[in-house]
Amino acid sequence: MTHPALSYRPAYDDRDVCLDRFRQVRSDTLRLIEGLSVEDMQVQTMPDVSPTKWHLAHVTWFFETFIAQRFLSSYQTFNPGFGYLFNSYYEQVGAQWPRSERGLLSRPTVSEILEYRAHVERSVAMLIETAPASEWGGIAPLLELGQQHERQHQELLLTDIKHVLSQAPDPAAAFGTDLEAAAMPGDSPYLAMAGGLVEIGANHADFVFDNELPRHKRWLEDFEICARPVSNGEFLEFVAEGGYEDPRLWLSDGWVWLNDHSVRHPLYWRNSDGQWQEYTLHGLAPLVPGFPVCHISAYEAAAYAEWKGERLPTEAELEILARHHPAEGIMLGDNGKIHPGALAGSGKPESVFGDVWEWTSSGYEAYPGYHPPDGAVGEYNGKFMSGQQVLRGGSCATERNHIRATYRNFFPADSRWQFSGLRLAKRTRSTSSLKSA
Amino acid sequence: MTHPALSYRPAYDDRDVCLDRFRQVRSDTLRLIEGLSVEDMQVQTMPDVSPTKWHLAHVTWFFETFIAQRFLSSYQTFNPGFGYLFNSYYEQVGAQWPRSERGLLSRPTVSEILEYRAHVERSVAMLIETAPASEWGGIAPLLELGQQHERQHQELLLTDIKHVLSQAPDPAAAFGTDLEAAAMPGDSPYLAMAGGLVEIGANHADFVFDNELPRHKRWLEDFEICARPVSNGEFLEFVAEGGYEDPRLWLSDGWVWLNDHSVRHPLYWRNSDGQWQEYTLHGLAPLVPGFPVCHISAYEAAAYAEWKGERLPTEAELEILARHHPAEGIMLGDNGKIHPGALAGSGKPESVFGDVWEWTSSGYEAYPGYHPPDGAVGEYNGKFMSGQQVLRGGSCATERNHIRATYRNFFPADSRWQFSGLRLAKRTRSTSSLKSA
Amino acid sequence: MTHPALSYRPAYDDRDVCLDRFRQVRSDTLRLIEGLSVEDMQVQTMPDVSPTKWHLAHVTWFFETFIAQRFLSSYQTFNPGFGYLFNSYYEQVGAQWPRSERGLLSRPTVSEILEYRAHVERSVAMLIETAPASEWGGIAPLLELGQQHERQHQELLLTDIKHVLSQAPDPAAAFGTDLEAAAMPGDSPYLAMAGGLVEIGANHADFVFDNELPRHKRWLEDFEICARPVSNGEFLEFVAEGGYEDPRLWLSDGWVWLNDHSVRHPLYWRNSDGQWQEYTLHGLAPLVPGFPVCHISAYEAAAYAEWKGERLPTEAELEILARHHPAEGIMLGDNGKIHPGALAGSGKPESVFGDVWEWTSSGYEAYPGYHPPDGAVGEYNGKFMSGQQVLRGGSCATERNHIRATYRNFFPADSRWQFSGLRLAKRTRSTSSLKSA
Amino acid sequence: MTHPALSYRPAYDDRDVCLDRFRQVRSDTLRLIEGLSVEDMQVQTMPDVSPTKWHLAHVTWFFETFIAQRFLSSYQTFNPGFGYLFNSYYEQVGAQWPRSERGLLSRPTVSEILEYRAHVERSVAMLIETAPASEWGGIAPLLELGQQHERQHQELLLTDIKHVLSQAPDPAAAFGTDLEAAAMPGDSPYLAMAGGLVEIGANHADFVFDNELPRHKRWLEDFEICARPVSNGEFLEFVAEGGYEDPRLWLSDGWVWLNDHSVRHPLYWRNSDGQWQEYTLHGLAPLVPGFPVCHISAYEAAAYAEWKGERLPTEAELEILARHHPAEGIMLGDNGKIHPGALAGSGKPESVFGDVWEWTSSGYEAYPGYHPPDGAVGEYNGKFMSGQQVLRGGSCATERNHIRATYRNFFPADSRWQFSGLRLAKRTRSTSSLKSA
Repeated sequence: MTHPALSYRPAYDDRDVCLDRFRQVRSDTLRLIEGLSVEDMQVQTMPDVSPTKWHLAHVTWFFETFIAQRFLSSYQTFNPGFGYLFNSYYEQVGAQWPRSERGLLSRPTVSEILEYRAHVERSVAMLIETAPASEWGGIAPLLELGQQHERQHQELLLTDIKHVLSQAPDPAAAFGTDLEAAAMPGDSPYLAMAGGLVEIGANHADFVFDNELPRHKRWLEDFEICARPVSNGEFLEFVAEGGYEDPRLWLSDGWVWLNDHSVRHPLYWRNSDGQWQEYTLHGLAPLVPGFPVCHISAYEAAAYAEWKGERLPTEAELEILARHHPAEGIMLGDNGKIHPGALAGSGKPESVFGDVWEWTSSGYEAYPGYHPPDGAVGEYNGKFMSGQQVLRGGSCATERNHIRATYRNFFPADSRWQFSGLRLAKRTRSTSSLKSA
Repeated sequence: MTHPALSYRPAYDDRDVCLDRFRQVRSDTLRLIEGLSVEDMQVQTMPDVSPTKWHLAHVTWFFETFIAQRFLSSYQTFNPGFGYLFNSYYEQVGAQWPRSERGLLSRPTVSEILEYRAHVERSVAMLIETAPASEWGGIAPLLELGQQHERQHQELLLTDIKHVLSQAPDPAAAFGTDLEAAAMPGDSPYLAMAGGLVEIGANHADFVFDNELPRHKRWLEDFEICARPVSNGEFLEFVAEGGYEDPRLWLSDGWVWLNDHSVRHPLYWRNSDGQWQEYTLHGLAPLVPGFPVCHISAYEAAAYAEWKGERLPTEAELEILARHHPAEGIMLGDNGKIHPGALAGSGKPESVFGDVWEWTSSGYEAYPGYHPPDGAVGEYNGKFMSGQQVLRGGSCATERNHIRATYRNFFPADSRWQFSGLRLAKRTRSTSSLKSA
Repeated sequence: MTHPALSYRPAYDDRDVCLDRFRQVRSDTLRLIEGLSVEDMQVQTMPDVSPTKWHLAHVTWFFETFIAQRFLSSYQTFNPGFGYLFNSYYEQVGAQWPRSERGLLSRPTVSEILEYRAHVERSVAMLIETAPASEWGGIAPLLELGQQHERQHQELLLTDIKHVLSQAPDPAAAFGTDLEAAAMPGDSPYLAMAGGLVEIGANHADFVFDNELPRHKRWLEDFEICARPVSNGEFLEFVAEGGYEDPRLWLSDGWVWLNDHSVRHPLYWRNSDGQWQEYTLHGLAPLVPGFPVCHISAYEAAAYAEWKGERLPTEAELEILARHHPAEGIMLGDNGKIHPGALAGSGKPESVFGDVWEWTSSGYEAYPGYHPPDGAVGEYNGKFMSGQQVLRGGSCATERNHIRATYRNFFPADSRWQFSGLRLAKRTRSTSSLKSA
Repeated sequence: MTHPALSYRPAYDDRDVCLDRFRQVRSDTLRLIEGLSVEDMQVQTMPDVSPTKWHLAHVTWFFETFIAQRFLSSYQTFNPGFGYLFNSYYEQVGAQWPRSERGLLSRPTVSEILEYRAHVERSVAMLIETAPASEWGGIAPLLELGQQHERQHQELLLTDIKHVLSQAPDPAAAFGTDLEAAAMPGDSPYLAMAGGLVEIGANHADFVFDNELPRHKRWLEDFEICARPVSNGEFLEFVAEGGYEDPRLWLSDGWVWLNDHSVRHPLYWRNSDGQWQEYTLHGLAPLVPGFPVCHISAYEAAAYAEWKGERLPTEAELEILARHHPAEGIMLGDNGKIHPGALAGSGKPESVFGDVWEWTSSGYEAYPGYHPPDGAVGEYNGKFMSGQQVLRGGSCATERNHIRATYRNFFPADSRWQFSGLRLAKRTRSTSSLKSA
């Protein structure tokens, strides 16, 4: 069966275009590691983080397993042991090296993994050029999926290496150092959005992941949503006014989490002799009030909203916002920076795509009528539909072509090593019809 | 402000009725502990479980704190130290003894706690009889809330003591022993339910919790749902055919949970020399195929549904089902049993209320327009709206007057010490419109 | 084989004496629980602590298993399931209920356990009276061992219930409340003790445990040892002057332990608004400077010694001290108190037996030529000869007839729920002979 | 003060000899890493293991801190942040980066650390050549200590990297592959050794660590000790006959440890389809019966001895053996192998030095009259004198000049990543004098 998310599309007909796109994705990945040492690429700092070299190998394993080994009869598997080491979670493909122990394997080395990349790349490139038309219909969607998959891992590679580099007492600026300051942005008005019986989800004109399907009806009340994300400067007020010490602001699980981990500020903030600093991939620098707050958990996002007397938006609300106001912030590749850009605070919709992923109040669930693709590639999104929360809009580490209004990202509520921030929605006050009941 | 969930209702005008209801709830609680030893009431077997004596005291503390101390000027606090010990999680009221250490306190003893109950009960009864009309409007809703709260704890007391008693190599039948067998029920047809633009949530003709509010519109696709819950006999097939060994059936978190805890069957099943037994509050007995499966986690429910090629219903679907087919099974007090009853398998709607709570695929979230009551009683439901999953319909340990179509119960997906089971909904197959895209 | 520790002795010939002693031990145990509630006897507050009711049953199981079931052919086992529940660690006898979960079993109840005690007691009493002379030689040493074993558990029962009762915010004085104060004792001189080729260990004139055997030669340098144990008042200086904050004073493992558990003072000390209190079995009271410090770990003992520039004695040194200066302090039954008595500070040897167990610098190892008895009773002492440290002298919770100069108690260095204190020995300064090497 | 362990010795007078020795130690360390990748040197696989690059830096930090910074006024500290990162446990010198997180720091890189080594080496070499005679007396003993310290870390570097490399499904042979097989050695007779009043400990003719001091008298009974260590072949019998399943053979803590960690054989043994293999630094190869068993814990050593009906020797016994029979096995540098050599089984004393460290039954305690050196270098041995067990004799990873009869190594009883094995001593049977008591 061909799954909707992977079905054949006309654009695949031009093999040269396909080959260019494939090479572009692959070389983009290598560009990200230019400033890293071999040691940087080896380290795993927590179970959620994978070593850079693992990312480099895993995305390659995906192309090898689902394309080269299936469709290229002459293909020579680079190393039969790599399947065990670089399979992430595809149970149908075989057993996996434990996720939390990826950093314990010093071998294969970075250099061997770069050879592995080149080997698989050559084979896939040859396949793109030479596959008979009768097979191309099966190959092209998997090639697209592999590329989208590698785009996702580009972002993870960046957030993971940020976590690795941040451990040091004096962390490195591995991606250059020239990040400008930005003043606190102006107050942000709420945009009034009309609800009603809307449609949500992908209509599948282009590549989408299975979890964006099917497009379906939703009833949405009218809502008001902030024109821009919350800034560092605003979040600093929450910190300064004791937001992290007031249990009434926090979800119950959030309060436990906060105390268990002694959380008192966003992940990469540091307070040095009363001065707030933020660690970025461009070094440790004074906290910039005009940047969007990022690297916060859903708990912190919800507590901030509670403190403001407002709420987090739902994912449907953010999808409607993105459809009508597709304002763009910084995305991967823009201006050589991997950090959110300054907020303008002009009152116009801002940063709907890019800069920071925005936490929603929506649990990550299947859309009505959803079912995953058959086979191993179906183990992609569906099995995570439990205990996670949806984020929308992409970040400064998301490639521009990889994000769209229907895109659903998801992480557990306590995750904060992604570029995650928030945008406020207005809490409805009018429940008067119930009061007299 | 009077919160919707707590607003004044005419029925409160008859003080005698109010007093009778109050005394009924209180004495019902005491009836539940008749077969228990003092030692039974002391033990805490896991952090989620509270000692029986703690439940007895906590529900009393609720009446003392929110009613007697506020409205009865002559009230003598029984023991000023009890606030710290028996506050569950009301941060606004004060600090709390750690939840996981409730079983470490041998004092106050059961006997002292029974005195505490009597003391507070006398005071509240006096208040019901003598409160001036001008204050009664503030007292009555809190009295109602306290009673509903005690009803909830009656169920928790039962599921907690079941966990306690189950630890023994040869567990006690503390609630009598005469549970009949029941054959495997007949196959269960799917009921076709019409969707469309429906309304969900409480319209507040009677007492409801804040999380059932406000009533709001939802778009629901037509759906098909099973006439009865899944039976032990059916679930046994899943066990026997390797359901617990096949990672493809499980949510990702579920597979980790299953392996971490070596889960191979529902919580209270035991395999003794190849024979399946189930521990019940009425003793250890051969597994009865005709009873609904219960004490399963949401992970097990979802894996079973996946194995059958179907899915869990959403909470909206179960609410619509309950509104149109309010079929009742066993509830607390029925026939002296605290165990789900035999399924008929007649093909007609069955066990929509009572018998077992039914897991849904819905994360526990706020309804659009929801906000919690002000003050400490507002710390009731809202702060748990993260990382939990909704269950519907009540169980054999739920009092009949405590359940309704809009009632939302919620637990983390790995919880299974409640009487939790499942009902299947049909997975939609027709996504053909997307296939040709 | 008859093991040395269990060999036949003339005193056993008088059956009436034997019966009296047996009954005395058994009734002494029951006297200890007079002030306890059923709930007190159920609770287990840490893995090292056993519920009181478990102690009551376990010492009974010992008599049942090693005497009644072996030697009394008419004996009816009280409950075949008790072997699994009340065996502590005798692997040769069978599997055991996990130690850390003893408090999870609400049944058998205290009342059933008291019946169990009476049942076994009657049988053993009958056996003492009627056993044929030919079997008496095998029975008598096991009877003695069972009694000594129950004496040991009397002390453990007390230290365990102290830990249980201490949990409460306002802990109970279950053993009466009239504990007098005592001023800081006078400075304590060091006694000069002659070394040389000495003999250590039991010569077996009376009952001894296997670990006291065999008596053997040791070379001991001359040493100086304090006339009395360290007092609360002295230890308070160590606390006040930052002893718990200075890593240089601590053994490496001790420093880790201290930080992991946030230890800042002896176990039962509390600082309430700047006033030091100590929880005792006779209630919470102001810290008494003249009592010996107790409930400290070997790490705290060693750090205190280091702070004073002195050292802990070895077990051989304390044995020599006890042989030459058998000064007695409070022991179990004295004056109805279960707490160390006031130190005189007269300069004469004091409190060598009783009051507090004294930590030594000696690891718990086998004496040269040691080997354990054959069979299950051999699993008594030998298998703990690893990673523990020896204490000497008995405490206020040790029965007078149960202690002697050769008695070796042993606990891991981080244990402090026993009545454990310390006595200083002088550090030798003269290593000048090495300096010129 | 000049501490005995660090006192001035005539050999230091020849500066050229001193310089040569210094350079030899430093270059020997670098020779050990020749086969390692940068990634190998980054990884930390458990808290006890340090990354190779950390060892390279830490031994350098020791020279920098205790020599260059103190005695060379012109010395330029390489990087002021290194003190925090590469101090191991010298509390008096300052705070330390947490031990279990050494592998999380990707920077400084290996290459930077090699620069650091060269920088400090140059400075120390200059100091050796140019220090005024008046200061040389203070420098020379610290230089010696630094070299001995680096020798110790050479061994740790090897055992740590062995643990790192062993993680891989197909582990690397980073130190060459040509390890020969060896047949099971002949039975080993027991050597009869005379006891009496002996002297133990260093007499300080040469460099010794403080824990070997002072030399002191001990009474030792006559004893019998095996001529050679236990072989793989012998230990395999223990494994095959269920030694790991029989609780009666194990120390109590050992049995808990074994079950908690599912231990069923020595650390680096693997059973592949019924064939036993052993991972060595020279690759994965069939288990060689004639090699000494190694990488066992003290628990495994004690259980084996119990199974044979014998016992572990004390440290005093092994010191006497070593004094009288200084037979040598493989030591670091011998034949390019880092693995124990084949046992001859000739009946003559064998492998008393080298091959494998031998576990003793002796807890690691201070000798009578011991006290540590003043100042930070005194934090070397004394603070570990708790909860550890002594090993004697050195291993195949110990440099020949670093081992001697009085040398005391120590590890917790559950450690087994060192080259640790055992030699049996005979259990004394004759306790007959006690039997008739």
